[in-house]
Amino acid sequence: MYRFNNDYSEGAHPRILEALAEASREQNAVYGNDRHSQHAAELIRQRIGRNDVAVHFLEGGTQTNLTAISAFLRPYQAAVAAETGHINVHETGAIEATGHKVLTVHTENGLLTPEMVQKVLDEHTDEHMVSPKLVYVSDSTEIGTIYTKTSLTALSKFCKANQLYLYLDGARLGSALTSEENDLTLQDLADLTDAFYIGGTKNGVLFGEALVICNPELKADFRFMQKQRGAITAKGMVLGVQFEVLFQDNLYFDLASHANRMADLIRSEIEEAGFSFLSPSPTNQIFPILPNSLIEKLKQKYGFEFWAKIDESASAIRLVTSWATPESEVEAFIKDFHDFVQ
Amino acid sequence: MYRFNNDYSEGAHPRILEALAEASREQNAVYGNDRHSQHAAELIRQRIGRNDVAVHFLEGGTQTNLTAISAFLRPYQAAVAAETGHINVHETGAIEATGHKVLTVHTENGLLTPEMVQKVLDEHTDEHMVSPKLVYVSDSTEIGTIYTKTSLTALSKFCKANQLYLYLDGARLGSALTSEENDLTLQDLADLTDAFYIGGTKNGVLFGEALVICNPELKADFRFMQKQRGAITAKGMVLGVQFEVLFQDNLYFDLASHANRMADLIRSEIEEAGFSFLSPSPTNQIFPILPNSLIEKLKQKYGFEFWAKIDESASAIRLVTSWATPESEVEAFIKDFHDFVQ
Amino acid sequence: MYRFNNDYSEGAHPRILEALAEASREQNAVYGNDRHSQHAAELIRQRIGRNDVAVHFLEGGTQTNLTAISAFLRPYQAAVAAETGHINVHETGAIEATGHKVLTVHTENGLLTPEMVQKVLDEHTDEHMVSPKLVYVSDSTEIGTIYTKTSLTALSKFCKANQLYLYLDGARLGSALTSEENDLTLQDLADLTDAFYIGGTKNGVLFGEALVICNPELKADFRFMQKQRGAITAKGMVLGVQFEVLFQDNLYFDLASHANRMADLIRSEIEEAGFSFLSPSPTNQIFPILPNSLIEKLKQKYGFEFWAKIDESASAIRLVTSWATPESEVEAFIKDFHDFVQ
Amino acid sequence: MYRFNNDYSEGAHPRILEALAEASREQNAVYGNDRHSQHAAELIRQRIGRNDVAVHFLEGGTQTNLTAISAFLRPYQAAVAAETGHINVHETGAIEATGHKVLTVHTENGLLTPEMVQKVLDEHTDEHMVSPKLVYVSDSTEIGTIYTKTSLTALSKFCKANQLYLYLDGARLGSALTSEENDLTLQDLADLTDAFYIGGTKNGVLFGEALVICNPELKADFRFMQKQRGAITAKGMVLGVQFEVLFQDNLYFDLASHANRMADLIRSEIEEAGFSFLSPSPTNQIFPILPNSLIEKLKQKYGFEFWAKIDESASAIRLVTSWATPESEVEAFIKDFHDFVQ
Repeated sequence: MYRFNNDYSEGAHPRILEALAEASREQNAVYGNDRHSQHAAELIRQRIGRNDVAVHFLEGGTQTNLTAISAFLRPYQAAVAAETGHINVHETGAIEATGHKVLTVHTENGLLTPEMVQKVLDEHTDEHMVSPKLVYVSDSTEIGTIYTKTSLTALSKFCKANQLYLYLDGARLGSALTSEENDLTLQDLADLTDAFYIGGTKNGVLFGEALVICNPELKADFRFMQKQRGAITAKGMVLGVQFEVLFQDNLYFDLASHANRMADLIRSEIEEAGFSFLSPSPTNQIFPILPNSLIEKLKQKYGFEFWAKIDESASAIRLVTSWATPESEVEAFIKDFHDFVQ
Repeated sequence: MYRFNNDYSEGAHPRILEALAEASREQNAVYGNDRHSQHAAELIRQRIGRNDVAVHFLEGGTQTNLTAISAFLRPYQAAVAAETGHINVHETGAIEATGHKVLTVHTENGLLTPEMVQKVLDEHTDEHMVSPKLVYVSDSTEIGTIYTKTSLTALSKFCKANQLYLYLDGARLGSALTSEENDLTLQDLADLTDAFYIGGTKNGVLFGEALVICNPELKADFRFMQKQRGAITAKGMVLGVQFEVLFQDNLYFDLASHANRMADLIRSEIEEAGFSFLSPSPTNQIFPILPNSLIEKLKQKYGFEFWAKIDESASAIRLVTSWATPESEVEAFIKDFHDFVQ
Repeated sequence: MYRFNNDYSEGAHPRILEALAEASREQNAVYGNDRHSQHAAELIRQRIGRNDVAVHFLEGGTQTNLTAISAFLRPYQAAVAAETGHINVHETGAIEATGHKVLTVHTENGLLTPEMVQKVLDEHTDEHMVSPKLVYVSDSTEIGTIYTKTSLTALSKFCKANQLYLYLDGARLGSALTSEENDLTLQDLADLTDAFYIGGTKNGVLFGEALVICNPELKADFRFMQKQRGAITAKGMVLGVQFEVLFQDNLYFDLASHANRMADLIRSEIEEAGFSFLSPSPTNQIFPILPNSLIEKLKQKYGFEFWAKIDESASAIRLVTSWATPESEVEAFIKDFHDFVQ
Repeated sequence: MYRFNNDYSEGAHPRILEALAEASREQNAVYGNDRHSQHAAELIRQRIGRNDVAVHFLEGGTQTNLTAISAFLRPYQAAVAAETGHINVHETGAIEATGHKVLTVHTENGLLTPEMVQKVLDEHTDEHMVSPKLVYVSDSTEIGTIYTKTSLTALSKFCKANQLYLYLDGARLGSALTSEENDLTLQDLADLTDAFYIGGTKNGVLFGEALVICNPELKADFRFMQKQRGAITAKGMVLGVQFEVLFQDNLYFDLASHANRMADLIRSEIEEAGFSFLSPSPTNQIFPILPNSLIEKLKQKYGFEFWAKIDESASAIRLVTSWATPESEVEAFIKDFHDFVQ
């Protein structure tokens, strides 16, 4: 049974595994001081077009979020996130475990606006309340939506005007940046955010995220924070090699484009069949609203997540494609979908 | 230049890389619920000879220590460790960052005894002081020494008698268990400790440690703690596959034996040349005390860590061998050492 | 200018000050081991009618909440509170600073129901999310409302059925229990909650809260937690003496009754004048909705808090009476109000 | 039985209680914004001779230490203290509970020197270890000794040269500053430290400490930290009034002088009788080494703490005098001591 449950069921791209096998025979410096990590960081800085950003490699998204956010904030400062934000829902209170409150705002589509954040600021006025200091956004969001250059610029300006840090969780950044609706670049992200991470785990590596710290005042002593959170990999080479492969040519974007194209194919079919979606996602996660009877039929042949009950007869499901999704499986799904709808 | 700096400069054993490449093509369940992780846990349980222990795979030693210790203790409870203990010195206060004090005792050789822990208990008598609750030991220790069955049994009995948890950091457990002086088995560890971890990172995998929780009262909800610390690997399969290879036959022990044998060869040469050692290590880390002039010559051709100044003319260095150390490099080192001493 | 801003502007009741002066000349045991603290705890246990509850005296509400909640929960467990709950809004993230997420539910009147908590439970299903474990309620609530015996019993049963702790913040418990609409007793609270505190600071003492731990499994080692949070008063006698005076006769309830009666007088006047209230509060905090022009006039002669904008021409204000509010000031206010409304 | 167990057995000085009674009738601003707190802060600034220091009133020593130290440090930074330091031994891991390691150095007399701290710096060299950032000293120390202007100046210069904060715990600062051997002033402390606190609890008030933050970079947002730790007193007036009385004339110093003089009388008698002391304390805690037989006799009539076993026949005890110790009790003790020694 082919599964569209998520984008991290498979291991790593063959080129990455080959590079790991080759590097495994070398003796490398440890804890991220190896030549591969340094080269990978350099490749990312080149891609971003700035020499002054700090690049650190960490092992996973939750680890990156908790390490970065707790490094950036003083104890009484809080993060602001969408209710649907990964740090709010799916990290078992990892941010709170480092001592920081996550303030949430309700959104329709997982995207934050200056107005939403302004409301939080308005409600936090003195020392009896936490002090909102960091705005957490995801791109793509947990429900597949993306920021445009206009919307992220507005948020960035707002943050700067209010002395807030803007932090972008890029667990699925590849999918966001290669979406047909996207007009943001890595360079834009470095200009607009104080820090963001380039997600690798969901885009072709065994594990690994590249945290980019753009704001100079947030760079100091970051490795101390990493080590304290158990977030410095002893064999840092393993992370470095994987990001070297992703960024020495266009592999990072090629893999994400493939995932998006696979989702596009499925989305088109579902749209054509006349169904709507819970979220206007142009990326590799789509959330069609389907009759329960149809869902039951699909479940016999494919794996996917139930997402939300819509009414007595219909539900939203989540279908996720990845760098590893074979086009043949997508074609089979589309054919089956077509048949079931008849 | 060949380096004896540590046992995690190289990547992973070829068999592990092959298994990862093969598994990479599969779709696996995520977050450690995959069949490889389950099989690896089963193999470890079989090796230990107990079905009732919980096995969790984590990414590194500091992460494992901080996750486990903070899971096991209430906020006012403290860990007791040797001054040289990894959690005391080399984890950037990771345990304290989870809220727990690390109480230290001075040791000659990195090994704890009941008497040392008793002294700590005697000094902590009421609610104005932390309550010592967990005894942290390493095997092999940070200076290469190991526990015997007699010494660990004494400590275990003492801990049980005093309602203390005994936790064993097995970052270099392979080297300890395959040392010629060792008489402990994995089964003994499960009987004598409340929890311990089987270190993979320093014994042939890209990264990974297998935490074994033996005390039933410490098992509950451990995965919540893992997730909160950013210590559940999304592609848990990557850890599972690696430990499957290590334990499906004798690879874990074979690799460690090799590392020990390489250290034995060097140790013998140094002993024969009449030099002494800072620590009576029978494992893969050795700490010879050598004339500074000799050290200078060795430094021209080999990498290793300076460890301690002994007097004006002599210092202790650390030489570490690993599963990946070629015997030819050891032979070359021995020959050079012999020549330099002449 | 007389101020109805809050119920802790004044110091302590004269009888309390006299008792402190007298006890000040004694030599007392320290850290709460003095005879006054023991006697006060005994008086409270008698009033509750149970010998098996633990009583601890702490210095203030936020301190009590953070000490108790962090003592009761494991790291990945969360508290559930109304959005208006003091721990959510007005404690600068004190609970999060101890590592715990506060999950919130929207309420109309500050009161939680089983249905609201059930919804939170439904949303938290596995180890990727915090585990709701403690339900935090306030009585009276932050907006003056109170639980009935029926409503609190329902919540208590729900909590027991779902292995949740029920914790009641009694910062204004005196006002709640002496409200005309109340049918709960201290004994009920001990039966229905796992822990609650009897607020002193807002009811006649210089400072101090009496935490009552009813659930035996939450009692162990609480003083360690207290000391670690800086919440054991060196001169514990000072707290003991004050609660001795409050509970050796009926002073605690008499003071609260007075505060309520003062609020009742004002409330009646405002109701009679035809105005409505933001919250159906039967206690010492009332939230009338008044024309802005009237508010302006009142502001010239009385202190109070602006609470919420209702529309362009009206706002809600908060008027608080206390044990120390002179009836003459209330009469003056009523007269002025009456005059201004004409 | 008169007790020399500690200096916080009694309540508050009569003048303080009178002032509290008087202020209790007023309506005061809350949370420390009242005129008494502002006046008390102003009096302290005047006494120090500097307008630029921030003064905050907190409830107790442990609370002050944990709030200040956690406010001053980033997560990976550590405090350095004497092994005997209050934060290391007698605060139940309060500093660690805020996430910070306490690094300790062995001292003969509880006093730190630049050499001792330098050794700690030498041992902490990279991101695998915590970063020592704050030096914690007590004056007088936990064993009664005091800093001289020379010794504290040396430590201060060392700290500045190494970008370390110097923080002074003044739980018994009154006794230190009025000791015959003292040559430091409050003004000196403001010049030499980054922050210190003026202990009230052990010098005549019901409870309260005045934290003085001298380093401008440590002032920002301190009240947020206070509130988060439950360390803002709702009726801040209570603290303000007490410190007003202590500092509106010389009461703070007079009370401490009395305590010292009482200790001097006892010390002289013991010295004349030919006994030695565990610690060269010129303050209100003295630690005579006495024959066990003599200790037994004293125990029949006086309270005091056993401190340390010296040998089979002798022990050190701790005798503490306070602002409240009647000279008549001291005379009685001296007479008894004299008689017992005969």
